[in-house]
Formats: sequence, C-alpha cells, structure tokens
Amino acid sequence: MDARRVSRQAARLLADTPAIAEAHFRAEAEPYDALSRPDGYLNLGTAENRLLWDLLEGRLAQLPPMTEATARYAPLHGTGVLRGRVAELLSATVGTPLDAEDLVVISGATGALDAIASVLCDPGEAIVVPAPYYGAFDTDLGGRSGARILPAPLDPADGFRLTASAVDRALRRAREEGVTVRAVALSSPSNPIGEVHRPEVLAELLRVVRAHDVDLIADEIYAHAVFGGEAFTSAADPAVNPDWAGRTHVVWGFAKDFGLPGLKTGVLHTRDPRVREAARALAYFAPVSTATQHTLAELLADREWVASFLAAGRLRLGASYGHLTGLLEAYGIPYAPAGAGFSVWLDLGRWLPAAGFEGEELLWRELFEKAKVSILPGGAFRSPRPGWFRLCHTVDAPLVAEAVRRIAVHLGLPPQTGPHDPTPSPAPRNGSRP
Amino acid sequence: MDARRVSRQAARLLADTPAIAEAHFRAEAEPYDALSRPDGYLNLGTAENRLLWDLLEGRLAQLPPMTEATARYAPLHGTGVLRGRVAELLSATVGTPLDAEDLVVISGATGALDAIASVLCDPGEAIVVPAPYYGAFDTDLGGRSGARILPAPLDPADGFRLTASAVDRALRRAREEGVTVRAVALSSPSNPIGEVHRPEVLAELLRVVRAHDVDLIADEIYAHAVFGGEAFTSAADPAVNPDWAGRTHVVWGFAKDFGLPGLKTGVLHTRDPRVREAARALAYFAPVSTATQHTLAELLADREWVASFLAAGRLRLGASYGHLTGLLEAYGIPYAPAGAGFSVWLDLGRWLPAAGFEGEELLWRELFEKAKVSILPGGAFRSPRPGWFRLCHTVDAPLVAEAVRRIAVHLGLPPQTGPHDPTPSPAPRNGSRP
Ligand SMILES: Cc1ncc(COP(=O)(O)O)c(C=O)c1O
Ligand SMILES: Cc1ncc(COP(=O)(O)O)c(C=O)c1O
Repeated sequence: MDARRVSRQAARLLADTPAIAEAHFRAEAEPYDALSRPDGYLNLGTAENRLLWDLLEGRLAQLPPMTEATARYAPLHGTGVLRGRVAELLSATVGTPLDAEDLVVISGATGALDAIASVLCDPGEAIVVPAPYYGAFDTDLGGRSGARILPAPLDPADGFRLTASAVDRALRRAREEGVTVRAVALSSPSNPIGEVHRPEVLAELLRVVRAHDVDLIADEIYAHAVFGGEAFTSAADPAVNPDWAGRTHVVWGFAKDFGLPGLKTGVLHTRDPRVREAARALAYFAPVSTATQHTLAELLADREWVASFLAAGRLRLGASYGHLTGLLEAYGIPYAPAGAGFSVWLDLGRWLPAAGFEGEELLWRELFEKAKVSILPGGAFRSPRPGWFRLCHTVDAPLVAEAVRRIAVHLGLPPQTGPHDPTPSPAPRNGSRP
Repeated sequence: MDARRVSRQAARLLADTPAIAEAHFRAEAEPYDALSRPDGYLNLGTAENRLLWDLLEGRLAQLPPMTEATARYAPLHGTGVLRGRVAELLSATVGTPLDAEDLVVISGATGALDAIASVLCDPGEAIVVPAPYYGAFDTDLGGRSGARILPAPLDPADGFRLTASAVDRALRRAREEGVTVRAVALSSPSNPIGEVHRPEVLAELLRVVRAHDVDLIADEIYAHAVFGGEAFTSAADPAVNPDWAGRTHVVWGFAKDFGLPGLKTGVLHTRDPRVREAARALAYFAPVSTATQHTLAELLADREWVASFLAAGRLRLGASYGHLTGLLEAYGIPYAPAGAGFSVWLDLGRWLPAAGFEGEELLWRELFEKAKVSILPGGAFRSPRPGWFRLCHTVDAPLVAEAVRRIAVHLGLPPQTGPHDPTPSPAPRNGSRP
C-alpha cells in the first residue's frame, strides 16, 4: 500500500524534505523554560509575533457572539463587511482608496498567493522572485499552479538589498532561455531580511516589470510591522506606480500585522476585473469561516483601537529588534539591519564547519541538536550565498537572550558586555557589522 | 483591460453560467415576509438547514473564548483535538474505529472533494458519478484537479435509485473509449434525491469499483441527516466494505449535519498513507481557522449534547419532510420519496412549457420570475431526464407552504385539501405519486 500511486500533481507537492518542519514541531514539543526545562528548545525559527496577545485578548473577549446570519453561507470570496473594513484599513496603507469589490478574502496569504499564481500562470510558465526570499513561495506560488519559480539573486555585498537591475537580469535570462515569465513576486517589506523598500527602488522595479510586460505580485503581509526610520510604501501606491495598477496584485493577511496566524485569513487585492473574477472562483475552494470573518470584521470596526494596537505593535517590535541587535553586537555576531518584520538575518558565514550550503546545513543541525536553538538556514530562503540564518525575535526577551547566548557559546564567542540583560537597546541603523 | 488573458486553468473555472447563483442572491436580497414583503422571493434553492439555530445558539454562547494557543499556527491539516473528536463522532457513523491520524480537516467538504480528486487524478483522467448528482461535483472534483466527470445515468423509471449496474456500465464505456478512470464518487445519502443507500446496494457498488480497480469517494456530508425508515450505512463500513477500505475515501463536514455551512469545515478520511500525506499537502492551501476549529471541537466535546442535538435535528427534518410531502400530495405534485437530506426531488415533467431541458429551464425561470420561488432545475444536477426540480424544505414551515401554494397556482393546480396548514404530516414511504 505504501507504494501506492498518487497523481503527478500531488506527487509534486510531496517532493520537499520536511527537516525544517520536523525541527519546528520538536522544538515546540519540548520548549525551554528557565525553571522547569532549562535545557529545552528555543524556537526562533517560526515567524510568529508573540508580543501582541495581551493587547488582543481583552478586545477579542468583548466582541459580540456569532449570530444565525454568521452561521449561514456567505459569498465565498469574503463577506461584504470584512472586505469593506479591510479596504478601509489598506486604503491608508496603500495610499489610495481601495474598492472592497477588488478584494478577495481567502485562506491565508498562502491561499492568496496560490490564487494569483494560478490565475496568471499555466504549468511551466514562470514567476521571477528576488532571492533570498520567503522559502514557502516555492510551494505557495508554484505548488498547485505548476508555475516555475526563478530566483533573481541579490548581491550579498550590500546585504541583499533589493535592486531592479537584479530582477531585470533574471527576466532577460528567462527570455533568452525561452521561458514564459508571467510575473515578478516579492515580499515587501521583505522576509527574511526585513528591508523596507524605498519608493525609488519600487518605482524602478515597476519600470522593469512594465518594460517586460509582466505582472507584479506584492506580498505586503508585513506592511504594518514597520519599526525603523523608513516608512512603508506599497507597490500599488500611485506615487511609485502611476500606470501599472491593473497589473499589480497585492497580498495581505492577519497573520503578521495582527498576530493571528492560526486564523489563516488572507486577502488579495487586484484591479483587473477578469483576474478578480478568476481569483474569486479559486477562493471558492479555500474560503474563510464566516465565524472568523465576523471576528476579524468586528476587530477592525473600532478604528481607534486598530490604530493604537498597530502603533503599540510597532513600538514593541522596534524594542524587540533593538534588544536582539544589542545582544548580537555585544557578542560580535554580524547581521543585516532591518526596518520591519519579525526577524534578523545573521551572517554566520565565518563559522561554517564546512564549505558551501553543506556547511550551512551542518551548522544549522549543530545549533538545533547541541545548542537547542531553532533558527532557519539561508538555504531555506534560496539565499544566493551560504552562511546566513534567519532568527525571529518576536518572543519574550529572556528567550531571545538565552538563544543568542547559546549561539555565541556554540560559536566560541565570549560576551563583550552583559549578555543576559533583557532590556531593549536602541536599534542600529547602519549596515552589517560585527 | 476586460480582454485580459488569464491562465487556461483559471479560465476553465470561469466557463459556468452564473444564472443559478444570481437567482440565489436575488432571492436572498428580497425575501418574502408575510407582513412586510408578501410578494418577496422564497428561496428553497439552497441546501441550508434553518431549523437548528435555536438548538445551537445557547450552546455556542457557552463555549470558552479563544486563547493565545488558538491564535497560533497549528498543523494545517487540522488540530489534533478537532481531528480526535471528529474521529470519535464518525467512528460510530462508519461502524468501525477511525484513527484521527487518517483525518484531514480542510476548508469545507468542497475542499475535501478537491483534495481527494487532485490526489487521485491528473488532468484528463476521469471520475464516474451516478447522475443526477450534486451539480457542484463538476467544480469540486474537476475544477482544479482537471479531472473529467463522467455521469453514470440512473433510471428515471424507478426514481433514479442508485444501482451498481449503472456505475458498471459507465466504467465499461469509459474503458472502451480509452479514458483512464481513477475513481467513482457519489453523495451518500444522495443529494438531490435524499436516498439512503441500502447496505446491499453499497456492497454491490464496492464489488464493481473493486473489479474495475478504481477508488471510491463517498461524500457522506448528510450522514446524520437521516429521518426515514432506512438507517444510514457508510460506504466505509466493514459490513459492506470488507476489503476496499484502503481505496475508499470518505468526505464529511459541518455544513449539513450541524447546520453550520458558513464555517466551511470539511474532513477527508483516508486510510492510504500516501494519499493521506498528499491530502495533507493540499490542506496546506485551504486550512480552517483555528478559532473555528476550536469552536467545533468544543461543540463536539459534550457527547450527550451532540447525541441529543443530532436526534432533535432528525426529528425536525422528518417533520419538515412530512409537512412538505403532505402539501405536495394535497396539490397532486409528484415527487421521489426521500429518507434523508434537506430536499425533495419533484417531478414537474408534465408541466414543462416546451420539450427537453429547454422546457425545464423555461419552467425554472417562470417559477423564479413569476411565482418568485427559487428551486433548482434538474439540469443543475445533470439529471438524465428533464422535468425534475429540487426543493429544499428546511426553512420555516409557513414559507414552505407559501412556496408550494405559489408553485401549484403557477401550474394551475387547485388544492385538494387545505394548503395553508403548516402542521407537519407523516411522511409517505412508497414511491413517486401524484
Ligand atoms: C512573506 C509571507 N507571505 C505569506 C506568509 C503566510 O501567511 P499565512 O499564514 O496567512 O498563509 C508568510 C508567513 O510566514 C510570509 O512571511
Ligand atoms: C453532497 C454535498 N457535498 C458537499 C457540499 C458542500 O459542502 P461545504 O459547504 O462544506 O463545502 C454540499 C453542499 O451543498 C453537498 O450537498
């Protein structure tokens, strides 16, 4: 029975090695606790923001219960109420009024990425993605659609900052090789790096996608998780995107900005009527529970609460980032500076026990097995250069401190100042340095 | 911009005519009300059970609120708690212990059907379905997977009862035509007819699928909505399925038996480890909100409540069915008798204003536009014979009475007894008759 045949389209989804997922669940099953399990795992591998629950709990408890109307079938691309409230929220973020009719609510940002990729691509057609990138893009954009993901490698020398020229090169190479590219996709702000893309860079990127006549998929799920000096600019903002709005598709969700990943609620914004119609047809297969839509719509109903929640979230993120980078500097661990997101991109290249991505994988395993710290290797983000790791810092500060201490001990680094200090320190703003 | 190209795989989903969906939303927007809108629409087209809310409301309000753990990422094929409780519930229904590990929780029975079809079929391969069938099977089983749906026409002469020989014929014909069939799918109890398949019929069907070496997909979403004399038997029950369990995949959900369609929570039960693994990979794209899973798991936690809720539901369904069939008999409208489900399959063949499915479509439009009654034409269920209509009776009894009255007036039928009597009468158990 084990040798049972499944379809080729399903087998494609089973090809990935589950090592990283396994690590996640092992780390979650035996978590560190200073008193009861001091040798437990520290899971800084998963991009969850655990700093927000106290802000959410009371508000969620106040919401009115579900009604008979909630329990009934509703439009499968999202209730009008939720789409209306999300449109209001994102209009401010995108910098232009969004029409609720152009929004499709769907099961997670994952579902939104799958939908837009499937609408734009047939199997074998391609999507170009600047690398390093959120590794699940391979599955989310390509797994069901059959699209090929072509990385556009960014330059390690400047900490993998996004450049339009890297995307342009990848698009040219694809054309030379006879590959039909339908879109460029990126996360903005970027995961894993936490870069907030500057308006000039986005404007240039849009000139490139326009010149190549391809669509742009902007995954802006971290749009409100911005804490640094650079304000967020949406790829759909008319200031950077005066003429490609119909070909720009924005993905967002409640997993990151609202710290509610379990609710798996994503949205796709697209202005093209036919793309929208097709995306709605795909949402039929992955709608969100009306009970959850009701909860989220009620959460958004109080604009003042939303504004203060998001502001408090940004402050906490900034403090958490500052605390982590203070520790990294104390130990002399280099990193790429971030202005958004839940993670920091560490450069452990000089400590690899062997060359190349094998060395990276080895160090990842050692950190997990010996130091019992779960962080993700750059290979999981299709990093163009081995030696980088993503560490998520959005957990209690003492856990971050303990993780950095263990990493430093493993790398043989003596502390240069008190490593156990859980007090947040201000974030550095100038480049990767030891 | 309207002429914009979308992928072929997306365009396939857009081919359907939305006339029926439009009718649904128009009917819902201007509903009948005896006092305020006596000329409003009566929507008896949607298979929603509106007779249960008073039983659910209090229980739902008592459930504990979501916790931080609820808000976090959980296994995307369903939380262990919900899968465990569903396994317990369905073990009794299926007649054999089910392992929670063999369950995949996914976005609606729709998601479960899409997942199993995509795991079993590559584009162009086929699934045989006895017809008439739940019309959305075309989309659910074929829309994303690319599978072809081949109807196995049942015989109108005996009210379209399921026979293994009809399925056998369709499988043979497909083989003759060189089509690769991967599975037979059916809803059991059947939608639209409400037939509760007898154990002998299921056993014979299993011999046929086994002889043809294809899988069986049993959509048992109405398993607990049984009110007639025939008890439900699952296609996975060892009593009828001693040796094809690894190739039998059961779909279930909370939409019908629990009257919670908005929550879009389905499950797939499959014993084959590789099929299960592939189905989990597909559930990644269509997971259910953990908040909703939490609600449903809590609902199932109290077994006594569940048993009494399901029992009360069956009684109400039977009463509603009896009321409707009493009215139909009073007016002399023939129908196929049902033992389960929310609907009755009416034979309006003698009143078609024109021949064939054009006549059926015409009568449907007349009933909708003139009588303002929304019921579904048999063509929407790939009925092999024109003239049949599905009427869902699970709404307040006076609405059912008003709908039947309007249909009878439209057909020019005088009442033979008091048509406005909303008191349920016992269900007839013997065949289609005027
Ligand atoms: C860039 C990006 N997109 C999408 C997702 C997935 O979002 P969801 O959980 O809403 O499917 C993540 C989560 O890690 C992400 O980082
Ligand atoms: C036989 C059958 N299967 C599946 C469904 C869809 O279920 P869900 O709303 O859980 O996707 C229905 C609903 O009408 C149905 O009748």
